Amino acid sequence: MQQVLNEATGPAPLSLTDDLRRRFIEAAGAGGAITDPTDIAAFTEDWRGTKTGNSPLVLRPADTQALSAIVRLANETRTPLVPQGGNTSLCGASVPEAEGAVIISLQRMNRIRTLDAAGMSVTAEAGVILQTLHEEAAKADRMFPLSLGAKGSATIGGLISTNAGGTQVLRYGTMRAQVLGLEAVLPDGSVLDQLTPLRKDNTGYDIKQLLIGAEGTLGFVTAASLRLLPAPKQVATAFAGLAAPEDALTLLTRMQAETGGVIDSFELVPRIAIDLVTQHVPGTRDPFAQSYPWYVLIELTSSQPGAELPEILERALVAALEDGTIADTVVAQSETQREDFWRLRETIAEGERADGPSLKHDISVPVADMPRFVTEVGDAIEARWPGAAMFSFGHLGDGNIHFNVRSEEDRLPRADLMAKHDEIAAFVYDRIADYGGSISAEHGIGTLKAGELARIGDPAKLVAMRAVKQALDPHGIMNPGKLFA
Amino acid sequence: MQQVLNEATGPAPLSLTDDLRRRFIEAAGAGGAITDPTDIAAFTEDWRGTKTGNSPLVLRPADTQALSAIVRLANETRTPLVPQGGNTSLCGASVPEAEGAVIISLQRMNRIRTLDAAGMSVTAEAGVILQTLHEEAAKADRMFPLSLGAKGSATIGGLISTNAGGTQVLRYGTMRAQVLGLEAVLPDGSVLDQLTPLRKDNTGYDIKQLLIGAEGTLGFVTAASLRLLPAPKQVATAFAGLAAPEDALTLLTRMQAETGGVIDSFELVPRIAIDLVTQHVPGTRDPFAQSYPWYVLIELTSSQPGAELPEILERALVAALEDGTIADTVVAQSETQREDFWRLRETIAEGERADGPSLKHDISVPVADMPRFVTEVGDAIEARWPGAAMFSFGHLGDGNIHFNVRSEEDRLPRADLMAKHDEIAAFVYDRIADYGGSISAEHGIGTLKAGELARIGDPAKLVAMRAVKQALDPHGIMNPGKLFA
Repeated sequence: MQQVLNEATGPAPLSLTDDLRRRFIEAAGAGGAITDPTDIAAFTEDWRGTKTGNSPLVLRPADTQALSAIVRLANETRTPLVPQGGNTSLCGASVPEAEGAVIISLQRMNRIRTLDAAGMSVTAEAGVILQTLHEEAAKADRMFPLSLGAKGSATIGGLISTNAGGTQVLRYGTMRAQVLGLEAVLPDGSVLDQLTPLRKDNTGYDIKQLLIGAEGTLGFVTAASLRLLPAPKQVATAFAGLAAPEDALTLLTRMQAETGGVIDSFELVPRIAIDLVTQHVPGTRDPFAQSYPWYVLIELTSSQPGAELPEILERALVAALEDGTIADTVVAQSETQREDFWRLRETIAEGERADGPSLKHDISVPVADMPRFVTEVGDAIEARWPGAAMFSFGHLGDGNIHFNVRSEEDRLPRADLMAKHDEIAAFVYDRIADYGGSISAEHGIGTLKAGELARIGDPAKLVAMRAVKQALDPHGIMNPGKLFA
Repeated sequence: MQQVLNEATGPAPLSLTDDLRRRFIEAAGAGGAITDPTDIAAFTEDWRGTKTGNSPLVLRPADTQALSAIVRLANETRTPLVPQGGNTSLCGASVPEAEGAVIISLQRMNRIRTLDAAGMSVTAEAGVILQTLHEEAAKADRMFPLSLGAKGSATIGGLISTNAGGTQVLRYGTMRAQVLGLEAVLPDGSVLDQLTPLRKDNTGYDIKQLLIGAEGTLGFVTAASLRLLPAPKQVATAFAGLAAPEDALTLLTRMQAETGGVIDSFELVPRIAIDLVTQHVPGTRDPFAQSYPWYVLIELTSSQPGAELPEILERALVAALEDGTIADTVVAQSETQREDFWRLRETIAEGERADGPSLKHDISVPVADMPRFVTEVGDAIEARWPGAAMFSFGHLGDGNIHFNVRSEEDRLPRADLMAKHDEIAAFVYDRIADYGGSISAEHGIGTLKAGELARIGDPAKLVAMRAVKQALDPHGIMNPGKLFA
C-alpha cells in the first residue's frame, strides 16, 4: 500500500489496494458499493457545481452495523472517509478532497423507525429526506418544525451534521433544538447509543452535541430522535413595506409581545430582490402598487383552532401603520395569496442567480445589532468598492442575513467584482468580528471558510476544537480537510 | 511539597505549601481569599448536609482575569480546583473531595453586564442569583424562562454547569436551551470567548455545549448570554384530580394541541403528597372536598394581553371532565388561589422530609412511557420490598419524575428502608436502562451517581467522555472525583 505522511494525522493511504477495496466492499454488505467511476462522479461534485473531488469508492451501507464495520476498518487502515447525505452543502463539506478518500453515502439508511404522536417524537435514520419527514409527521397531525429550500433532497443526517437553520428558527430554533436523541458511529467504529427521546438527561457530557454541526469530522450520525409539535391549525401571513431595517426590528420586537410568541417567520427583503424576482421568475408579482425600500414577510401559526390569528396579525399591523413603523401592508386573504408571498421570498436566490454571479456571506450578529450592521457595513462596502451594490436578505428575526454583494455592470463588471472575493470577504468578516458575530450562521465552514475561521476565530475555541478532534479521531480519518485549515 | 500519585491524573499536592498558597492568594486579587478554617467550613458541606469535604483555601476572584490567573497557576502546579456557585448541588458535585483542593467561589462575579430588552437577551456573570435575574428581567418587561425551588441561592454558573431544569422545561427547555453565549475559563487558564448572544452560529464544534452540564469538570463558566422572552401578561392555573398517570398523559397531549402550546407547567402529584403537605406544612389545604388517587397542576401563560387563557383552560378541562379523563378540577380564581396551588406543589419536598427520610431517584424516561413506568416499576418495588411505598411526583410533561420511596414505619422501619439504598437504587436504575431512560434527569451525577453511571452508562459515551476530559483537562485539576467513578 502506497502511503504519504498526512501532516496532521499520520499516514493515509494514497489509494486503495485491491485487498483493502475488497474488504470495504465486504463490510458494506450486499448492494452497498458503487465502483464504476461514472457512477462515482455523481458523488464527487458539490451542489453549487464549484468544487469537484475524486474518490475510488462509494459505500452505501444499509444499517448501522455495516457502517460500524466500515469505520472500524477505516480506522485500522487510516483510510479517510467522507460522509454524504443529500450532498447539498453550500461550503464544500461533502466533497472528497483527501487522496483515496472513500465516500460513505447514508442514503440507504432511510427508514423512519418509529413515530410517536402522543410522545411528540419521531426516530428517523440519517438518510430520511426532510420532505418525507414533513409528510409523515403531517399524517399523524404533527409538525416537524424545521424547513428550508433544499427540503426535497437534504437528509436528516446532513441537517444534523450542519446544524441546519431555515425559515422557522425564530420560533423553533435550529436543528440542535430539534434533536432529542442521537445514534452515531464514532471514528473508532463504536456506536454511540443515545437515541431515546429524553427531554431531560443530566448524565455527564452531552456528547451528541459535539456531533451536531461537526460536518462529519467526528463521526457519522446514523439516526436521531427528533421532537414533533402539534400540527398548525391556523396560519396568517403578511407582507409589509417599510423604510429601513431598523423599522423592521421595531415591528418584530413589538409583535413578539403582542402575538404571544407565535411568529414562525420574519424575513427581511430588500427592494432589489423584488425587482430581480419579478423580472426573472415567471408568475411572481409585487404585492404592492407602490415601491418601498425594504419589506418583511411575516407568518404566524397556531395549533389552537380558535386562535384568530388573522385578527391578531391585522391588529398589530394597523397599529404599526398608524405610528409610521411600516408604510404599507397586505395580509394574505387565501392560501393562494400566501403561497405567492412565500414564492417571492423563496425564489430570491433564483432571481439573484439570474442577475449574474454575486459574492455571498452567510453571517449573523446579535438580533438587535443587525439593522445597524446592514446599513453601516453595506454603506462601507458600496463606498470602498464603487459600483458594488448590497443585496441583503433573510432571517432578520434570527440575526442572520445573507449579506450578498452584486454590482452594476457598467460601473463594476461582474468579473471584476468576483475577482475581489477574498478581499471583500475578509472585509466583511473583520466587521463581523467587531460585532461579535459569526462568519457562518447556517451554512457551515467546510473547506470554503476554514481559512477565515482559523484567522479570526476565538483562539481558545480553536484550541479546544483541535483537542476534541484529536481525542475522538486520533487518526484523522473523518472528513479530512473540512473545518480545520 | 508533599505529593501522592493521583491514579487518573498524575501527581497532586496533598496540601498547599506556604509559597503556593501565597501565589494563589495573590492571583485572586484583593479581598479574594478566605483562609480562616471556620470561614472555610461554610463552603465544605453540601446543601443536603450529608457530605463534608475539606479544603485549605477558598478563593473568590472578582473577575475573569483573576480567575484565569488562578487556573493557570493550578494547571502548572497540578492543584485540584472545586468550583462553587450557590452550593445547592443535590449530588455532592460542589463538595471538595480531593486532598488539598482549593475551592473557587464565583459569588463575587455577580454583575449583570448588559440587559438588551429589544434584543431579548441578558449577559450575566456566573455568580448572579437566579431570583435577581428574574427581578431584573421583570423590570424590563421580560421573563427569564427557567425557575426552580432554590432560585434564592442558585447561581447562573451553577445552573449552567448542571444544565438545570425546574418547572417550566416543558415549554422552554432546560438551561441548555437558554444559553446563547458563554464565557468560560478552560482548564489551561485560557478564556473561551463565546459570549455574544447569537441565535445562529455554525462555525465548528459548539464547545460551549460541553461546559453545559459538565459539573465543573471541564472549566469554569464565568458569564453567559441568556435568552429572554416577553413578560407574561396572562396566566391561568388549575388543579385536576384523576385516577391514574395514564389519564394525566392523555390530558397533556390533548391540551398541548388545544391550547396552542402555551402550557408552562404540567406537574404530577400523588395523593400521598397532598396528605403529607397538608399535615406538615402550615397554611396548605386540599383544593378538593373529595380525595383522588392522582392530581395534576397545570399552568398556562401568554405574553399576549387578549389571550383569554382562563377560558381556554376551562374549555379544555370541561371537555376532559365530560369524557372522564379527569374526575374533578378547580381553576384558580385569584392570584392568592394560584399561589396556594403552587405552594402545595413546591412544599412537597418539605412534607416528604417531615415524614422522615426517603430514597430519592431523579429519573426520566420518554414522556409517553412515564405512566407505565410509574405504575409498573412502582408496583414492582412495593411487591419486592414489603412495606415500601412509592412517592412519585414532578415534571410529567418532561418525562421526569422524582421517583422516591418511603415506607410504612410499622411494616418496614425507615432505618431498614434506608439501609437498602444501594439495592433499591440499582433496581430502579436497571429498570431505567430497560426503558432507555436517564438515571439523572436534572440533578446531575456528582459523586452520588458516578458509580451507577459507570455501571450502566452507554459504553461509547463513557469512552468519549473520558477522551474529552483528558483532552481538555490533561492534568485532571477540574473538580476531581466528580462525574467519573
